[in-house]
Parts: sequence; C-alpha cells; structure tokens
Amino acid sequence: MATIKSPLDEAAQKAAGTALQGALVDLVDLSLLAKQAHWNLTGRNFKVVHEHLDEVVDLARQSMDEVAERAIAIGVNPDGRARTVADRSELPQLEAGYLADDKVVAAVTDLLAQIIGRFRERIAATDEPDPVSQDLLIGITAELEKQHWMFQAQT
Amino acid sequence: MATIKSPLDEAAQKAAGTALQGALVDLVDLSLLAKQAHWNLTGRNFKVVHEHLDEVVDLARQSMDEVAERAIAIGVNPDGRARTVADRSELPQLEAGYLADDKVVAAVTDLLAQIIGRFRERIAATDEPDPVSQDLLIGITAELEKQHWMFQAQT
Amino acid sequence: MATIKSPLDEAAQKAAGTALQGALVDLVDLSLLAKQAHWNLTGRNFKVVHEHLDEVVDLARQSMDEVAERAIAIGVNPDGRARTVADRSELPQLEAGYLADDKVVAAVTDLLAQIIGRFRERIAATDEPDPVSQDLLIGITAELEKQHWMFQAQT
Amino acid sequence: MATIKSPLDEAAQKAAGTALQGALVDLVDLSLLAKQAHWNLTGRNFKVVHEHLDEVVDLARQSMDEVAERAIAIGVNPDGRARTVADRSELPQLEAGYLADDKVVAAVTDLLAQIIGRFRERIAATDEPDPVSQDLLIGITAELEKQHWMFQAQT
Amino acid sequence: MATIKSPLDEAAQKAAGTALQGALVDLVDLSLLAKQAHWNLTGRNFKVVHEHLDEVVDLARQSMDEVAERAIAIGVNPDGRARTVADRSELPQLEAGYLADDKVVAAVTDLLAQIIGRFRERIAATDEPDPVSQDLLIGITAELEKQHWMFQAQT
Amino acid sequence: MATIKSPLDEAAQKAAGTALQGALVDLVDLSLLAKQAHWNLTGRNFKVVHEHLDEVVDLARQSMDEVAERAIAIGVNPDGRARTVADRSELPQLEAGYLADDKVVAAVTDLLAQIIGRFRERIAATDEPDPVSQDLLIGITAELEKQHWMFQAQT
Amino acid sequence: MATIKSPLDEAAQKAAGTALQGALVDLVDLSLLAKQAHWNLTGRNFKVVHEHLDEVVDLARQSMDEVAERAIAIGVNPDGRARTVADRSELPQLEAGYLADDKVVAAVTDLLAQIIGRFRERIAATDEPDPVSQDLLIGITAELEKQHWMFQAQT
Amino acid sequence: MATIKSPLDEAAQKAAGTALQGALVDLVDLSLLAKQAHWNLTGRNFKVVHEHLDEVVDLARQSMDEVAERAIAIGVNPDGRARTVADRSELPQLEAGYLADDKVVAAVTDLLAQIIGRFRERIAATDEPDPVSQDLLIGITAELEKQHWMFQAQT
Amino acid sequence: MATIKSPLDEAAQKAAGTALQGALVDLVDLSLLAKQAHWNLTGRNFKVVHEHLDEVVDLARQSMDEVAERAIAIGVNPDGRARTVADRSELPQLEAGYLADDKVVAAVTDLLAQIIGRFRERIAATDEPDPVSQDLLIGITAELEKQHWMFQAQT
Amino acid sequence: MATIKSPLDEAAQKAAGTALQGALVDLVDLSLLAKQAHWNLTGRNFKVVHEHLDEVVDLARQSMDEVAERAIAIGVNPDGRARTVADRSELPQLEAGYLADDKVVAAVTDLLAQIIGRFRERIAATDEPDPVSQDLLIGITAELEKQHWMFQAQT
Amino acid sequence: MATIKSPLDEAAQKAAGTALQGALVDLVDLSLLAKQAHWNLTGRNFKVVHEHLDEVVDLARQSMDEVAERAIAIGVNPDGRARTVADRSELPQLEAGYLADDKVVAAVTDLLAQIIGRFRERIAATDEPDPVSQDLLIGITAELEKQHWMFQAQT
Amino acid sequence: MATIKSPLDEAAQKAAGTALQGALVDLVDLSLLAKQAHWNLTGRNFKVVHEHLDEVVDLARQSMDEVAERAIAIGVNPDGRARTVADRSELPQLEAGYLADDKVVAAVTDLLAQIIGRFRERIAATDEPDPVSQDLLIGITAELEKQHWMFQAQT
Repeated sequence: MATIKSPLDEAAQKAAGTALQGALVDLVDLSLLAKQAHWNLTGRNFKVVHEHLDEVVDLARQSMDEVAERAIAIGVNPDGRARTVADRSELPQLEAGYLADDKVVAAVTDLLAQIIGRFRERIAATDEPDPVSQDLLIGITAELEKQHWMFQAQT
Repeated sequence: MATIKSPLDEAAQKAAGTALQGALVDLVDLSLLAKQAHWNLTGRNFKVVHEHLDEVVDLARQSMDEVAERAIAIGVNPDGRARTVADRSELPQLEAGYLADDKVVAAVTDLLAQIIGRFRERIAATDEPDPVSQDLLIGITAELEKQHWMFQAQT
Repeated sequence: MATIKSPLDEAAQKAAGTALQGALVDLVDLSLLAKQAHWNLTGRNFKVVHEHLDEVVDLARQSMDEVAERAIAIGVNPDGRARTVADRSELPQLEAGYLADDKVVAAVTDLLAQIIGRFRERIAATDEPDPVSQDLLIGITAELEKQHWMFQAQT
Repeated sequence: MATIKSPLDEAAQKAAGTALQGALVDLVDLSLLAKQAHWNLTGRNFKVVHEHLDEVVDLARQSMDEVAERAIAIGVNPDGRARTVADRSELPQLEAGYLADDKVVAAVTDLLAQIIGRFRERIAATDEPDPVSQDLLIGITAELEKQHWMFQAQT
Repeated sequence: MATIKSPLDEAAQKAAGTALQGALVDLVDLSLLAKQAHWNLTGRNFKVVHEHLDEVVDLARQSMDEVAERAIAIGVNPDGRARTVADRSELPQLEAGYLADDKVVAAVTDLLAQIIGRFRERIAATDEPDPVSQDLLIGITAELEKQHWMFQAQT
Repeated sequence: MATIKSPLDEAAQKAAGTALQGALVDLVDLSLLAKQAHWNLTGRNFKVVHEHLDEVVDLARQSMDEVAERAIAIGVNPDGRARTVADRSELPQLEAGYLADDKVVAAVTDLLAQIIGRFRERIAATDEPDPVSQDLLIGITAELEKQHWMFQAQT
Repeated sequence: MATIKSPLDEAAQKAAGTALQGALVDLVDLSLLAKQAHWNLTGRNFKVVHEHLDEVVDLARQSMDEVAERAIAIGVNPDGRARTVADRSELPQLEAGYLADDKVVAAVTDLLAQIIGRFRERIAATDEPDPVSQDLLIGITAELEKQHWMFQAQT
Repeated sequence: MATIKSPLDEAAQKAAGTALQGALVDLVDLSLLAKQAHWNLTGRNFKVVHEHLDEVVDLARQSMDEVAERAIAIGVNPDGRARTVADRSELPQLEAGYLADDKVVAAVTDLLAQIIGRFRERIAATDEPDPVSQDLLIGITAELEKQHWMFQAQT
Repeated sequence: MATIKSPLDEAAQKAAGTALQGALVDLVDLSLLAKQAHWNLTGRNFKVVHEHLDEVVDLARQSMDEVAERAIAIGVNPDGRARTVADRSELPQLEAGYLADDKVVAAVTDLLAQIIGRFRERIAATDEPDPVSQDLLIGITAELEKQHWMFQAQT
Repeated sequence: MATIKSPLDEAAQKAAGTALQGALVDLVDLSLLAKQAHWNLTGRNFKVVHEHLDEVVDLARQSMDEVAERAIAIGVNPDGRARTVADRSELPQLEAGYLADDKVVAAVTDLLAQIIGRFRERIAATDEPDPVSQDLLIGITAELEKQHWMFQAQT
Repeated sequence: MATIKSPLDEAAQKAAGTALQGALVDLVDLSLLAKQAHWNLTGRNFKVVHEHLDEVVDLARQSMDEVAERAIAIGVNPDGRARTVADRSELPQLEAGYLADDKVVAAVTDLLAQIIGRFRERIAATDEPDPVSQDLLIGITAELEKQHWMFQAQT
Repeated sequence: MATIKSPLDEAAQKAAGTALQGALVDLVDLSLLAKQAHWNLTGRNFKVVHEHLDEVVDLARQSMDEVAERAIAIGVNPDGRARTVADRSELPQLEAGYLADDKVVAAVTDLLAQIIGRFRERIAATDEPDPVSQDLLIGITAELEKQHWMFQAQT
C-alpha cells in the first residue's frame, strides 16, 4: 500500500506532524461543542448567538480539513475519530441540556482562548521545521482570534 | 431558564426523542469516520473515493443538524459531544493510519448498512407518536440508501 | 367554464379540502400578523426580531401558496380574501400601534403553537383520504415547529 | 417603550401618514385579491394570466413593505391586519369559486385603475408635506400604471 | 459481478420494485410524448403550451431518474429502454404530424390523469413494504397533480 | 390547422428532413441507453462511469431537441415517440439487469462509433440542400466524437 | 488615421462586405420594428406576444453587432445609421398606432421570411470568398428560421 | 381593438405624450449613433472608447424602452421606426467610414449635451401634467449627465 | 486642462453645488464614524449592532459617490479629503476607545437625525435650481430616514 | 464595560498595536485621496484611470477593515476618525479642483511608494511580537506593491 | 495500451492532423507571447493593453485545448511541449525586458496576422477531409480576426 | 521608457528575482506538461486523471501569473517565452504519443516532487531579502504539496 513520501526530513516531519495533529483534535472538538451549544441554546439573544455559533462551526470544519490534509501531505496520518477526540481533547466540556446564552458566550470565549494559546505554541514550533505548515497555522489563528474578540465583546 | 414546550404529549415526545438522539449519534460518528477515510485514503481510485466520501460527510452533517434541531423543537435536548458519540456509537471503527481504497469502500458500505437498519427501526417507532419526525427520518434514509447503493456498486 | 376534476372521490375531496382551506386561513393571517409586528416593533432586540419575523412571513407566504394550489388541484376552491380571513381566523390579534420586542416574541410563540395544534389535527384528518395533501401538511408543520422552537427559545 | 420621533412636523406627519396608511390598505388587499385569482383561475389563457398575476402579487407585496416602513420611519404606525383591510378597503371584491380568465383580466384592470386614482391623489397630497414619501408613491404609481396598461391591452 | 443487497426483505423488495418499474415506464413515455407535442405543436397558444410542455418534460425526466435510482437502491434493476417502454406503456399515443394546441392540452390532461391513477395505486401498494419508496411516489404524485390541474384549467 | 412553410424547396426539404429524422432516432435511443447503463452499472469504476454517462445523456437530450426543432423549422414533422424509436433504431441494445463498467465503456464506445458513422453521412447529404442543417449536424458530430474519444481512451 | 487591413483579397472583401452590410440593414430594421410592435400591441395574447417580440429584438441586436464587427474585421465600414436604414431597408413597415396581436404575428412571420430569403442568398454569396463570414451568416439564419417557425406556428 | 384608457386627462396626456415621444426619438437615434461609432472607431484609445460607447448604447436602449412603455401606459402610441427617427431626429449625424477616437469623444459629448438640453425642457413641461413621467425623465437625465461628464472629461 | 461645462446656469450650479458639497462632508464623516463604532463596540448586542453599522457604512459610501459624481457632472469640484472633512463636519464626534452598544445606538440615531435635518434643507434648496440633484438627495434621505427609524427603534 | 483581553503580552501588544494603528491612518487617507482623484480627474485617459482608482479604493477599504479588526482583536483600540487621519497622516495631499490624469498617476505612484516604505518597516517591527499581524501586513503589502507597479508602468 | 480509432480514413486523418498540430503550435506560442507582453508592458496605455492581452491569452488557451482535443479525437497525438513549440513555431519572438505599449500593439497585430494567414490555409486544407475540424478552425479564425481588428484599430 | 523602481535594495531584488524567475520556468513547463498528459492520456482511469490534470494546469497557470507579476513589481523582468522555458527547464520531459494513466500519475508525482524541492530552496533564499515574495512562494508550495500528496496517493 502506498505511503506518502514527505517533502520534509524526519525530524521536521515529526515536529510539524505533532503540531498539526494537536490542532486537529482542538478543531474537531470545537466543531462539536459549538454545534452542541447551537442546538441547546436559550435566552434573549438566542437568534444571534445561534447563528454566530454556526460561523464558529464553519471555521472549525474548514480548518480541520486544511490541517488534516496538510498532515497527510507531509506523510503524517491525521486522526480525527470520535474516540481520539474524546480522549485527547483538553477543552472544557459543555453540560448536557439547555444552555443559557450568556454562559455560552463566556464558555466559547474561554474555549477559543485556550485553543489560541496552543496554536501560538504550534506556530513557534513549526517556524524552523516547516514554514508551509506554520503559514497555515498563522492563518487559522487569525480567524480564531477574530472570533475570540467578537465573543468577548459580547460579554 | 426557558425550556421548550413540546407540541407532543410526554410519551410521544419520549419515543420520538429516543429515535432522534440515536440518529444523531449515528450521524455524527458517520461524519467523523468518513472524514477519517477521506484523509488517510490510498489506492488507484483515491481521487474518486476521496471526493465521494465528502458527499457522505455533507449528507451526515446536514442530516445531523436537521435531526438535532427536530429533537429540540419537540423539547428534547440533543447530545452530540465527542464523549457521548465515542461511548454510545455502535459503528465499527476504522483503524488509524493509511486506508486502502477498496477496504474503505467495503467499510463504508457496511457502516451505511448498519445505520440504515437502525433508521428503518426508528421510522417504525415514530409512525404513531410523531409523523413529522418520521417524515424527516424517511427523507434521510432515502439519501443513506442511495449512498449505500453507490458504494456497494463499486465493490 | 372549466372546473377541475378531482383525482379523489367526493368524501376524500371534502375531507382534504376542509383541512387545506383551514390551513390557508391560518397561514394568510399569520403572514399579515408577522408583517404587522415587523413594522411596528420596538425594543433592544429590534433588529434581530424584525428580521426573524420576515422569515415567518416568507414561510407563511410560501406555504399558503402550496396549500391553496393543492386545494385547487383536488378540485376545491381556496378562499384567501381579506374578508374571509378576518371572519374565520381564530388567531389572537395584535394590538394597533407600537409593539415591544419581548411581547412580540411571546405573541408569535403563541400564534405558532395554536396553528401547530390545528395542523396536527389536519395531518390526522388527511391520513386516509389523501396522503399527498397529508405529506404537504407534514412538511409545513415541520417548519412551523422549527420557528416555534426558535421564538420560544428567546423568551 | 420607544416611539419613533418623526423628521416631520405634526401636520406634515399627519398628511403623509394618512396617504401612506391608505396606500397600505390598497396594496395589502391587492396582494390578496391577485392571489385569489391566481389560484381559482380557468380558461384558455390560464397559464399566462396565472403567471402574470404573480407579478402583481410581487409588486403589491414589495410596495406594501416600502409604504409601511416609510410610515413608521415618519412616526406613524401602519396597520395591515386582516380586519383593518377587510373593513377599510374600497376595492371591489372577487367572487368565491372559479374565475374565468377574461373576467379576471377585466377585474384586475379595474382594481388597478381605482388604486391608481387614489395614488395620484396621494401624490398631490404629499407634495408639500413630504417629498420623500411623495417620491416613493410616484415610483409605485409608475409600476401600477405599467401593470394597468398590460392588463388593459389584453382585453 | 456485484449485485446490490437490498435493505428490504424479498417480499417488500418485490412489491416496491413492481411499483417503481411501473412508474418508470409511465414517466419515460410521458417525457417522450411531451417532447413530441412540444415539437409538432401549432395554434394560437403555441408559445405558452410549447414552453409549458417543457415543464412536463423536466418533471418526467427528473422523476424517472429518482424512481430508477430508488429501484436499484433496493436491488431491483430498472428497465427504461425504448423497446420496454414501447411494449409496456399503457398511455394513449399521440398521432404523428402537426398537433393543434387545444387537442394537446386535452391529451396531456388525459395522460396525466391516467398516470396519477396508477401512482395512487402504487402509493397504496408501497405503504407497508417500503415507506421510503412510498414517500418518493407521494412527492412525484403531488407534482403530477399540480400539472394535471394546470393543463385542465386551460381546457 | 397551420402547417409550417419551409424556407427550402421540396427536394432540399426532403433531403434535410430525412437526415434530421434519422439523427433524432439515434439521439433519443442514445439518451435512453445511456440512462439504462447509468442506473444498472456496477464495478470498480462505478462512480466515474455513472457520472460520465450523464454527460452523454445531456448531450443526447440537448442535441435531440435542436435536431427536432430544426426539422419542424423546415416544415418536417419530427417523430420521437417510443414506438418509432424502438422500431427504427439500428443501435445494438443493452441487456436488462446489471451491467459491468468495462462492458458499458466498450458498448458506449461502439454505440457512439455507429452514430458518428451515420452523422458523417448526414453531413454529406445536407451539404447542398441545406447548409444550415449541415452546420447543426457538424456541431453535434464534434461533441459525439469527443465523447467517443473519451470512452475509447478508458478501454 | 488607421484603416483596417483585411485578411481577404479585394474581390473577396467586396463580396463579403456587401453581404454583411445588407444583413446589417435587415437586422437593425428588424430590431426597430419588433420594438415598435412590442410597445403598441393589443389583444388577447398581448402578454405572450409582447415578450416573444423581445426575443426577436435580442436576436436582432446581438446579430447586428456580430455582423457589423465582422464587416470591420475584414476592413469594410458598416453603416447602421437611422437614415441609411430608413432609405435602404426593403422590409414592409408597420403602421403607426395600435397593432392587433394576430396581425403582428402575421407581419413578423412575413418580415422573417423575407430576411431569411436574403440571408440564404448571402450564405451562397460568401461560400467562396469568405467561409468565416459565411459561418456567421449560417448561425444567424438558424436562429431566424427558428423564430420564423415559432411565429408561424401561432397563426 | 382595445385602446389604452389613460389615467391622465386629455391635456395632461398630450403634454406628457409629446415629451415622451420626443425623448424616444432622441434615444433611438443615440443608440444607433453610438453603435455606429462603436464599430467604425480607430485610434490609440480604441479599446476604452469602444467599450465606453456600449455603456451609452445600453443606457439609450434601456431608457427608450422605459420611455415608450410609459407613453403607451398613458394611452399615447410611441413611434420608434427607422423612418420616423431619420426624419424627426435633430441630432448631428456621424460621417460614414472610419471615425477617429478624439473626434468621437467630442461628437458624443455634443450629442449628449443637446439631448440633455431637451430633456431638461421635458422635465419642466411634465411637472404639472404628470409627475410620474417627470420622475422617469429626471432619472434618465441624471444618467445622461453622468455620461456627458465622463465623455467631456476625456477631451 | 479640461473643465466640465455645466448643464446648469451659474446661479443654479452654485446652489446645487453648495448642497452637494455639504452632503458629501456629512456622508464621508458618517462613513468614518460608523466604522469607528463598528470596530470599538462592546456589549450584549455587539454582533447585531456591529453588522448593522456596516449597513450604514455601505449607505454612506454609496451615497457619497453618487453625490460627488453628481457635483462634478454639473461642473462643481467635490472635496472629500480628510482635512476638509475634519474641519467642516458639524457632526458630534465619538470618543476614542471602547464604545458601549447602547451608547452607540443613541449616538448613531443622533448623527442620522442631524444629517437628515440638513438633507431636508438641501432638498428644499435644490427644488428650483436642479430637480435632478434634488431627486438624488430625496432618494438618499429616504434611506437615511429608514436607518434613523431602525436605530431609534432599538433605544 | 468589556475590554478585550489580548492573546499577546503587553510589550508585543504595544508593538503590534503601533504598527496596526499606523497602517490604519495610511489606509484611510489613501482611500479618501483615491476617491478625491476618482472624482476630479480629467484627461485623455480619464476612463481608465477613473476606474483604476476605484481598485485602489477597494483595496484601501478592505485592508483598513482587516487592520482595524486585527488591532481590536489584540486589545488595541483602532482610531480612524477624520480628525485623527487629518492630523496624523504623513501622506502628501492632493490639491482641490481638477486633476490631470498624468499628474494623478504620478501622485498615486508616489503615495503608494511612501505607504509601502512604512509597511515594510511594520513587517519588520511585528516579526517577533506577533507573526499573525505580520502575516496580515505582508499580504496587504503584496497588493500595494502590485498597484505601485501598475501605476508606475503608466508613467 | 489503447489507441484511439479514428472516425476518418487514413488520408483524411493525416490532412486534418497536420492542420490541427500546426494550429496547436501557433496557439501555445501565442499564449506564451501574450503573457510575456502582459507582464513586461509599460506606457501610457499600460492598463488597457495589459488587460486586452489577457483576452488574447484566454482565447489562445481555450482554442489550444479545443484543437488538441480535436486532434486526439481523430486519433492524432497533439504535441504542445515547450521544446516542440520553441523549435517549430514560426512566430516572431518578443525581446526580453520592458516592452513599450505601442510596440506591443504593433507586434500582436503582426502575430495575429501571421497566424490568421496559416489558419485560412488550414480551413482550405480540411474542407474535404474533415468538415468537423474545419468548422472548429473557422470558429477560431473568427475570434482571431476580431482580435486582429481590435489591435490594429489602436495603431 | 518607464522602468519599474523596486521597493527593494539591489541585493534583495536580485535574490528575490532569481527565485521568482526560477519558479516561473518551473510553472510554465508544468502547465505545458500537464496539458500534454491531459490530451494524450489513456487507461482505465482516463476520466479521473484527465480532469485531475486540469487542476494542476489551473494551479500552474494561476501561480505563474502571480510569480511573474511579483517579479515585475520588484523591478525584475520575468521571462516565460517558449524558448526560455525549453532551454532552462530542468523538468524531465514526457514522451510524445499516448501516455498510460499509471505512468502519468507516477510522472506527475515526480515532476511535483522536483518542483517542490526547488520551491523550498526559494523559500529559504527569500526569507531575508523579501518576506513578501517568500509568502507568495509558501502559498504556492502548499498547493503543490497538496497535489503531490494526491497524485502519490493514487500510485
């Protein structure tokens, strides 16, 4: 069976691969948590927050695909299965049941802040080994920080 | 905090809610497994199967949203979090690492067959309690069976 | 002058026709009340509720057309004139003048709940006589219940 | 509760408001009557007239929205509820049941002629008090007269 | 060679398959007859009827594809070849040569009435064995009955 | 009843009409055969060939319409009814039931080659009598030969 | 001042130029006459014929531009000024004032027949000197003959 | 034969009709002259002026249609035939043959200035009799003056 | 260097020019202030107000372009440079730093009210000298008053 | 009132904030100056340069929005008010009144060259503190340098 | 390995193949030369000529694809590799470095004239052997001659 | 004649220019080789690989344009003529004649791997001299590596 021959040497491949797999877990879990809030939301600002959360879902889904395809392009197998995400994600989880809009805004702000912190570490970690992966991570971070600002501004 | 008052009586709500929550777990897991295969695929038919899997992802994502929003519309809180999906899904899981195209086609055919079996039970279970939910499940089943045929035809 | 020959026998035609004409009155009045609120709205959530109400108007207008064209297709003349709607509608009416956003959200939730109750009766009443009309009513009910959830979630 | 502070003085506001509310009643009733004919039509020219009537519906709906939003923008509450329209509309009403195409063409020509007559009075009445409202009424009259010509040309 | 494993048991598969194959023959023949009339039409209403017939062609072609793909999805081979259609179709055939517009309108009304009669039997026949196929047949019947009304209204 | 007065003299009309009617039978049958294969296909290349066949269907349907409308424009009644096609078509027919992808590719290549042969004769036959019809036939032949190459290249 | 150097020799340029300039006069006049009828039309079929005439206007305008740009591309100055068209056009003119729909249909059929006759002569006249201009004239003739058929079919 | 009953009294109709018919002749001739220049243009700025002239053609064609349809809507028959335009137009005519870009820019500036002068008189003349026609003429004048500025700025 | 020759006499040009230049300063400053608030906004209604402000920016930018191009079309040089706007604008300025959503809504309501007051004076001032400029100012005022209502309704 | 918590430490935030605020002033002033030239332009190349300047306006407006939203995302309040831009911009200003096309081309080339010089300093200044802001500035610089080349090439 | 079986006999295939391969070399080289000029252009008319050249590139790329696919469709292998084009092209080459706009216009006019000359020979050469290839070459020649006129008109 | 003044100093300009010119040769040759394979391809996977190659052509053409325009923007003349590409390209060339699909997949994988290796060197070489050019090269490398993975995965 074909395996993908990396354009990177082994050390660079490993460093970039670790950063990308970590990003993938963050983004898959973000997409599921934002959908969970999208569905179970209540409160005066329901309509706006309900729709705003779908922007986060779109960002997370688009980014997870880019990150995973970048991983395989450098010969690293991405893993985005439910079990992997459930076991490895460090994100604080939402409760089951109804979720009040102001609590959701605060929780998403916090989720994004934690993810951003890890993305900034990944940007630093890929600078030497793979500027192409780094450029992708920078682009996603810009979008995450934009959403972070917009959720924060509503608190 | 607001809770959603159901247009159904309690028994009907419970029956329909059980069917919808079960469908949600199937569909979230299907979306993650199809993406996993989309990324780690290899083989002569890579390009076709790679793109075909994204049709399944789109179907699963679109359907999970309809199913979860139907659940909350009848006053039942949907749960699509990673931990819930990992613990409750009965779908056979894909291995980590590279996945050969013919094995993926066989695996997706099998995944779809299992999901379809459960959807047909849910169609029966919602017939009396809630024809609106049933109609949604019938529509999704039609699409799942269409994909089931198309994957099967390639084996 | 041509009259439309029904694909249904007389009893079925009458049962389905009654359900469809009732639905038509509900939907025309809903479209006018939602516009009334859309125009006279005030309050902190003006912009969101103002736009949300137009989704209800679109749903009501689209559905009234499908319902009326279904009626004539089975040889029953639909009646959606202002006088007919004013006399036969059982919907609680909005006051003239300014309407506060939270009161509008509560009123629309209530309007939708009443309409949904009647649509569920119409679904039952058309099951035997005309599954084609029933299928249309099920589809509209799904959309009405989705809006019902979303208005309710804001209260 | 907020009330809208008008950019017009009281007399101008009243004059413009009267013109706009009158226009609203005409346009809502026109939209309902054109739909009534759209649904119950028969005759050799069914298809053409059926579609032509929907152009009138679109014009009436688009215009009623502009007229009502103009009213509220100058601090006058528009009233487009079914009861108001049924009681205040001076338009000749269509019969219930099937409507022959040539009679519909004649009736719509007549409806439009009556509405146009009142719109021309409203254009005159708003010239001094509010040229902005007048400009809106002129624009709608141009469209109404275009439809009037086209229906008339078929008779 | 692969054969499609049905999600239905044998009896259900046979019942649904019979209904779908019958529908396929009706729809292929309808598409060819409507085109035949589209091309050979004459008369004062040529332009309108010429274009109206293409709406029927589009409906027939779209529906035949859905019906045939539904058949294969439940493991039944659809047969839409010219010989099969010519031999099995029960639809009254149009004459060769020029066709007057009023006769075409009457003939298409009749064609649709016959097809609708058989579709309603197929809806009944699939209720138990396969609600997914039934739902498809209901949807197509709704469209056929809409066209039936519109052609009939012109007579 | 109106008959179409040809811009051609009688001999030219007859020659061009024969060529166009022959083309029509070829194209209607091609559209039905390509759909038959589209539905009953199996094999490793199912997805690609399934979609490729719909390009042939689109080409055949678009071309048959142009050919038939060209015929009537020169005063010749086109005949595309099922019986006519079944009786006059010289194309080799596909078997009922499942069709393996490689056999379909070979069969379509052969179908196209036969049709192309006849179209080239029709191009020659219309050169003198009607260069307008000839130009249409040349354009369709170019598309048929492009598909012929692409199917052949897969064998 | 630049003059365009023709890709044709002088005799060929003259022959092709004469054909193109003649076509230009026909097409400009056709566009003005079809608009004249579009505006002054009356009768039961007003709406259909009114819109059909705009198809002729579009065809005439599109074709006149292609014909004139082809003329200048071979170094021949096209002349489409009002005076030129008024003086050189051989087309029968419409009366001023209202025009009944059936008379318009007959008149446009006749206009098109005359233009087609001259276009067929131009096709013959450009065969040797310039197959590129000929190909353009053939394409426009096809469209003119299609319109000729459709107007004729309504008589 | 139907004649259009005007919403204006006779004097107003005559005044507005005169203004609109005058505008029609100006606009038809402008459209033909701008096309004449579009085709026969030469010079360093060929490409820009060639395309700019088509903006004038589009404006003239769009405006002539609005003006003529406004005329008929008030019961006045518009006349835009070649002979009428050739005889009544007061616009300075372009020479036959090649036209240098700078001379075209100057000529179009002049054409527009003359038309604008007459449109301003028509705006004054319709103020009392028909504010609806006046509003149309004002709108066209705004566009003509915008083109006048842009051509002038290039000189 | 070319200067634009006005279609207006000197006095009319001056009156219209003064109105248009005043409008330009108002609109440029409005566009900058609305962007300033768009960026520095905070509060529970952040998302809605943030997006609503961009509607104001679009309106201001679109209108400033129309106003400035109208000025130059009548031979008056518009001046929209930063220094000019800073020195001549009479609009109350926003503070630097974060801006609370309810204060922004109040401030924009006030900004719009002041601009509307001046636009109504400009409508009066251009009535005689230039109805074309007046018509443009009326159109912009209608949009400004619509936004004024919508911001006011949220307070 | 909410303040945005930066993902950067204080020193990095200050360095990035200074670069972004400087960029904002450059871009707002560029947008206003390019519009000023767009409106007051004259000369043989008016049309091309007029449209080219709007590309610069679009670039400046799009970029100012990205720069300001990036600033607030890192907790720095952007300031784009007219007074701020007038006082802090270092760009050479255009004269009031008509502007000749060749002088505009030279002036815009110069404006862009100065802005580019400062953007390259900002790229260097953000390299360490914030690669996300740097990436944004690099992207804008690429576009500014592309416009710089294209204006320069015309001189 | 599959080889494409030609619908032409050997002599016809060879004649058509020679014409198409020659056309391919001309068109590939034209696409590269037009891009070379597009990039290295300078002069007052930079913007217009820069964009005009991309129209030529689009035409050359579109046409080369049609020509090459036509060649393979008749069983002749097209060769568009850099070495082949460099060795066989007879087109005069552009110098390296900056290219003045007027020289580019003259050079492209000349390039097009040479290509057109050869295309006219190819039209003649394919008349007998393959009217389908001839029709393609005629269509491309029409476009090349249109560009030839437009470049020439600017000199 | 104008020459472009670079925003870079001479050494930086030279380093960046060398990288960009090298990239240009790679990309032009890639575009021609991918088209060569697109046309001459055969084999079971013809359709998929045929279309996949056009994605590579689009990427190469889009990227070559960006690279060449970046070169000229920093004052370096790009050279993409056939002779230059033929002489300087280091890419392994495809044979003339038919090309089997599996060999094409292998060859394109190899071509991309070689180009990627050189692009990574160019990314390193432009890091200091010009981060703007580097950012462009990084973006293109990401796309090339994505295609490299996808072709490799099929082997």
